[in-house]
Amino acid sequence: MTTDPRSPRRAPAGAAVLREDVTDAIRAAVFEELAAVGFARMSIEGIARRAGVGKTAVYRRWKSKLSLVLDLVSAFAAQGLPAPATGSLYGDVRALLEVAAHALRHPVASQVIPDLLVESARNPEISDAIKAALLDGQRGVAALIVRDAVARGELPESTDADRALDVIVGPLYWRLVVVRSGLPEGYLDEVARGAVAALRA
Amino acid sequence: MTTDPRSPRRAPAGAAVLREDVTDAIRAAVFEELAAVGFARMSIEGIARRAGVGKTAVYRRWKSKLSLVLDLVSAFAAQGLPAPATGSLYGDVRALLEVAAHALRHPVASQVIPDLLVESARNPEISDAIKAALLDGQRGVAALIVRDAVARGELPESTDADRALDVIVGPLYWRLVVVRSGLPEGYLDEVARGAVAALRA
Repeated sequence: MTTDPRSPRRAPAGAAVLREDVTDAIRAAVFEELAAVGFARMSIEGIARRAGVGKTAVYRRWKSKLSLVLDLVSAFAAQGLPAPATGSLYGDVRALLEVAAHALRHPVASQVIPDLLVESARNPEISDAIKAALLDGQRGVAALIVRDAVARGELPESTDADRALDVIVGPLYWRLVVVRSGLPEGYLDEVARGAVAALRA
Repeated sequence: MTTDPRSPRRAPAGAAVLREDVTDAIRAAVFEELAAVGFARMSIEGIARRAGVGKTAVYRRWKSKLSLVLDLVSAFAAQGLPAPATGSLYGDVRALLEVAAHALRHPVASQVIPDLLVESARNPEISDAIKAALLDGQRGVAALIVRDAVARGELPESTDADRALDVIVGPLYWRLVVVRSGLPEGYLDEVARGAVAALRA
């Protein structure tokens, strides 16, 4: 590497410093663009236009739309899911459903993630990123809920945490993302009661 | 309308008769193309190439890729879902899960439908076609299962058929289409037992 005397550590005006507000504007534009046109049709040009920046501002930060999306999915996941720890299986399941219902109403979950799931069948990089970023976090929370319930004697030791997640989140995902109808009054309470009964069956 | 003396009822060689084997080849190509590249990237050109026909052969039958897809989704639905009628709630739920697991392993369900669901948020025509073609059929079967179970005294009269469908199909959809992992041995039995318990809770 050569040292350019015009580029000391303290960047002068005009140097290639990556402005954070521009980075944030691009990230926001990617989510909006993904929701509006989907991964397949999304272009760096469209992202730049929506963010109000030049295409080079995007390419200076990410080398392709794939790396951009992978980066965003990871950032989304890094927020993590809190383990409920309410002291009862019903309380934990109900709390997880509350968080999940909120998340699934967000365009990222209802539009961007399903889009990327479809893409992931064609693209192992996207598949791995989604698994690591989203599913592993949810499986971790389900494992904690099951572990605590087993410790309290509310569930048998043989309870499978992955199946628990299917039973807790599956009905809600089907209703909000596939059928795309709203939640009737008391729906989360009923699904929580049902999931607890299903896990004990 | 004018009558062309060269086109009597019995079509002569060379007339614009739509050959059924070509139509079938195009239909098959659409499913393969949808699974391979998705609705957004799919083109009439790609479909024609895959079907081994000219583009005009496609345009003679359908005016756009949207009308092609809507037509196919409706045809897929017309096959209908059989109502199980096994004589018990557990039996009916288990039978519905068997059919659903088989269907969800098919590329149409695991790749094409999720893709069209993502598109449907941007396109009310696709949304309406999917609702009419797929969801209404499944809701109908769930309604029959619940009706029979209520008649046998296995479920309370207040049981909501839509929620029943969420609880029966949701966990399986989550596992096969979202998490995309296989089904462990005995999984369908467990989900069926769980769904019955959930509906009675």
